[in-house]
Amino acid sequence: MEKRIYNFSAGPAILPEDVLKEAQEDLFVLPGVGMSILEISHRSKKFDEIHAAAKNDLKTLFNLSDDYQLLFLQGGASLQFSMVPLNLMPPKNKADYIVTGTWSKKAVKEAKRVGAVNIAATTESENFKRIPKPEEIKLDPDAAYVHFTSNNTIFGTEWQNEPETGNVPLICDASSDILSRKINVNKYGLIYAGAQKNMGPSGVTFVIIRKDLIARSGDSLHTMLSYKTHAENDSLYNTPSVFGIYIIGLIAKWMLKNGGVDAMSKLNTEKAQLLYKCLDESAGYYKGHADKDSRSNMNITWRLPSEDLEKKLISEATKAGFDGLKGHRSVGGLRASIYNAFPKKGVEDLVEFLNDFKTKNA
Amino acid sequence: MEKRIYNFSAGPAILPEDVLKEAQEDLFVLPGVGMSILEISHRSKKFDEIHAAAKNDLKTLFNLSDDYQLLFLQGGASLQFSMVPLNLMPPKNKADYIVTGTWSKKAVKEAKRVGAVNIAATTESENFKRIPKPEEIKLDPDAAYVHFTSNNTIFGTEWQNEPETGNVPLICDASSDILSRKINVNKYGLIYAGAQKNMGPSGVTFVIIRKDLIARSGDSLHTMLSYKTHAENDSLYNTPSVFGIYIIGLIAKWMLKNGGVDAMSKLNTEKAQLLYKCLDESAGYYKGHADKDSRSNMNITWRLPSEDLEKKLISEATKAGFDGLKGHRSVGGLRASIYNAFPKKGVEDLVEFLNDFKTKNA
Repeated sequence: MEKRIYNFSAGPAILPEDVLKEAQEDLFVLPGVGMSILEISHRSKKFDEIHAAAKNDLKTLFNLSDDYQLLFLQGGASLQFSMVPLNLMPPKNKADYIVTGTWSKKAVKEAKRVGAVNIAATTESENFKRIPKPEEIKLDPDAAYVHFTSNNTIFGTEWQNEPETGNVPLICDASSDILSRKINVNKYGLIYAGAQKNMGPSGVTFVIIRKDLIARSGDSLHTMLSYKTHAENDSLYNTPSVFGIYIIGLIAKWMLKNGGVDAMSKLNTEKAQLLYKCLDESAGYYKGHADKDSRSNMNITWRLPSEDLEKKLISEATKAGFDGLKGHRSVGGLRASIYNAFPKKGVEDLVEFLNDFKTKNA
Repeated sequence: MEKRIYNFSAGPAILPEDVLKEAQEDLFVLPGVGMSILEISHRSKKFDEIHAAAKNDLKTLFNLSDDYQLLFLQGGASLQFSMVPLNLMPPKNKADYIVTGTWSKKAVKEAKRVGAVNIAATTESENFKRIPKPEEIKLDPDAAYVHFTSNNTIFGTEWQNEPETGNVPLICDASSDILSRKINVNKYGLIYAGAQKNMGPSGVTFVIIRKDLIARSGDSLHTMLSYKTHAENDSLYNTPSVFGIYIIGLIAKWMLKNGGVDAMSKLNTEKAQLLYKCLDESAGYYKGHADKDSRSNMNITWRLPSEDLEKKLISEATKAGFDGLKGHRSVGGLRASIYNAFPKKGVEDLVEFLNDFKTKNA
């Protein structure tokens, strides 16, 4: 078997090896079914079981109350940028958006097609190096909802606690840190995430919606764009990504087997701290982009003294089996994405590599 | 390894065994990449290669001219029911729809949210047992487009030739017979298909669009609902279903290796004829739903003298390893879906089973 390398990609991203092995073993024939998971009907008994188990395990992981419903959709967070305002903005036709990066801005762009957007706070003038402070956030108590992005892959920032919005429903794009740490879902109206970081392969969008909000979906909405359609049909109005839901189910099981969200959270903090400590102790050679109080546990972003050194480091790292470290052009430099499935050993090896590189090139 | 059974499911459906085996072998580590296909970035060099090869092989299979562009989207045919009118109906705001079954009706429902729908023909009063005759189709020469469904999975009917629409763009939902037979794409403005029958797993929507039609997409459209977005970004505006596109690529290669569309078409006709012959020679014991001149090569639908006998047959067939034969409730009885990957041997075995059942139960 070919050797696997360290995959620091921002997403699609590394998945648990145990899950990949199980999926591989069963890909040709799903045990007891006589056909592949790629071939079974989404109306079959076997898929019902897979779907129900995935939902059940996710409910356990999120400690979800019956006030909420889980949905598996398609189109990624990018389609949610439209579905959220189309479904939830009327009849007030105004909503608050907190802008902390590229993805928040894209969400704003679509929301403006539906109604009035109030930018409740933004850190764009500081190249999104930090999350706004509570006192900087100007919320409209009459807004249809408040939208924020919990983790910003490009800039490497993450909300340490969600904004307090009182009775106004809180909507979160949690694509890049979902299931990486404990959250109190009861504080949220709706959470959405492209699955392709902590949850599964690309091509599935995960949504948690508070059931009372489903009533907001108007009858004039196109059928596939209505949360009501998908909620009433338990994500099976049309053919879902059967394989994607299957993999999400395997990952949920893997998480439960490995201590659930608490264990992931502890490990994620340990991994991130290892890397941040390396940056902080480099005497400014490695300079983190994010302010310390806004640092992400999922995506660590930093610069070197020059672009030439950054190129050299990336090139040598790639040769040494550390893949996907090039930062997004909006920040430059380097980015290490270390999602749930990324092994601590990989971070330790990267830290050793970085210390070594600094010694040779400082 | 567990035994595989005969999968007559209408979709998701049977896929080529060679493709399943290749995907299985490479699932843990994609050769030369060091990570799984489920983990690679959609911006990676490897995915570029996979994507380019899939497009290239599909262009060959469709004998596509440079006037057309291929897109890999999400949301299934059901989202296309909305995207087609949202993008292509303005500024005329009227279109012709030919209604030949449940899926056509769903397309009409969404189109009516956008503009005026002229039902150019329908065979609903005959429970969709046939395709309309050319002289029955009343087209508006000023329509924005004409929409039809080339194959009707539920009723087992299929257009033998597409309708002639002159200069009005022809739009086709080809979800259930795409790549099963040769078509002249130059007669079409846009063809769409959920991949989960002849093309791949569920979760990918395949679109062929004539490039001049892309200009119709208005700037006020939500970004993810605009063909222009996806065309300008070569299907990579957001993260696509990487695994789905990979499997579609493997299937395209498998088709080319096995004689392309012509060979598939010949084989599909042979398979369907075997089964229709069995029905026709049963002296009315097996009664086909579709009129002879409207019969589908993909989905064969038939009834037995009583519902009790139908239940008995399905139960015995399932035990004998023929899965998924229960007909849709709109028609009742039985349905055998025999897409490209379905082996001729499986049809021969089913015919033998049907003849045997008739002998014992007539």
